[in-house]
Amino acid sequence: MLTAHTIKILQSLDKKKFRQKYNLFLVEGNKIISELFKSNFKIKEILSTDPQKLDRTDTPVTHISENELRKISFLKTPKDSIAICYLNEEKKLEDREVQLVLDGIQDPGNLGTIIRLADWFGIEQIICSEDTVDFYNPKVIQATMGSFTRVNIVYTDLVDYLSNTDNINIGTDMEGENLYSFDKPEKLNLILGNEGNGMRPETEKLLHKSISIPRFGKAQSTESLNVSMAAGIILGQLYS
Amino acid sequence: MLTAHTIKILQSLDKKKFRQKYNLFLVEGNKIISELFKSNFKIKEILSTDPQKLDRTDTPVTHISENELRKISFLKTPKDSIAICYLNEEKKLEDREVQLVLDGIQDPGNLGTIIRLADWFGIEQIICSEDTVDFYNPKVIQATMGSFTRVNIVYTDLVDYLSNTDNINIGTDMEGENLYSFDKPEKLNLILGNEGNGMRPETEKLLHKSISIPRFGKAQSTESLNVSMAAGIILGQLYS
Repeated sequence: MLTAHTIKILQSLDKKKFRQKYNLFLVEGNKIISELFKSNFKIKEILSTDPQKLDRTDTPVTHISENELRKISFLKTPKDSIAICYLNEEKKLEDREVQLVLDGIQDPGNLGTIIRLADWFGIEQIICSEDTVDFYNPKVIQATMGSFTRVNIVYTDLVDYLSNTDNINIGTDMEGENLYSFDKPEKLNLILGNEGNGMRPETEKLLHKSISIPRFGKAQSTESLNVSMAAGIILGQLYS
Repeated sequence: MLTAHTIKILQSLDKKKFRQKYNLFLVEGNKIISELFKSNFKIKEILSTDPQKLDRTDTPVTHISENELRKISFLKTPKDSIAICYLNEEKKLEDREVQLVLDGIQDPGNLGTIIRLADWFGIEQIICSEDTVDFYNPKVIQATMGSFTRVNIVYTDLVDYLSNTDNINIGTDMEGENLYSFDKPEKLNLILGNEGNGMRPETEKLLHKSISIPRFGKAQSTESLNVSMAAGIILGQLYS
């Protein structure tokens, strides 16, 4: 039986403020939870409606009812289990050959998709502006399908970071060089801007290069691809 | 003032059955509505909280209150106007050089993203299995950002279609040829399967070729990209 107090704490973890206060976040569903076991994330406890399916002896598992699960789940259709995990200590790795840099991405689904993409292409690190949506947000965690365990994500002052990196800072811009013919630098940061407003002017000033995805259709010049889709097409090309 | 009867009919248009019964669908927001004016879709009437912003004399515009708008909108945050449109007569065009073929795509967001992608790359036609989500679904219409006006979408028996097309039918498969090195046929159908189950076996039998997007990361072999993201990366490469 979960106490009302515990339920209240767990329910509060959809907010960054409370995740930081308690140093905890939630991961839902046995499939994603199984990725945690292979990662350096530490699990405090797993709450499960079917503990035997998890078959873990090294992690405390508590049997909860479907009704309790519904109370604490952030999903419309709650899954079998919820893992209560500790936030990882944030630590920037040395710059990698290809990195993503996010300047104010706000939509949790977009961040989740971008983390999943990074994982697919083996990109080990994503650098985020401080106002980019928190990747511990439950919607981000679920959208990554577990990929957040394999990509190092850091939040930092972008102007400071981009001014000091040895990587070539590349942005996207309709007037940029053609994605299919531009000279790919050896070490690069691909910078992705906010969904509505794009990059901040301070960030844009620190670009070394701009690229564009050629458009073949009749779409108006004001139309654009969603930021995560643009990232996918660019990465597909960088790795070709 | 909208009558209760009208409101009831408009509210029913989130269901395919009622869209077909009344031969109507809804488009929300002046931005997407303005794409309709340039298309061959016919508008029955526009309901708007601010008719002057629309500035149309060739279409009947009715002034409605914010409260009425909230009652008929399918959006969490309703926009300025709603256009009531007639369903277009479905008509298959001759096969194009590059077409998308959808085998049971269920998620409206995915279909919307795929239509937007098709539009970006100038793909003029999408062939859908009969159980693919209806593109007149309000969530699809909104996710396309207006692109549905520039892409011809037909629903048909896929086995019949794929057996008779002169295009080369290409599927995706982890064992397929490398996307970056395969020989691109002159005329092709790129077939995209259902989100959970992939293509139907009957569809798979009619493939001439399979391709795969190489994975560079440490992700498990069971992990995959979302279907619309995979489509984006493949199209990005086909058009490179």
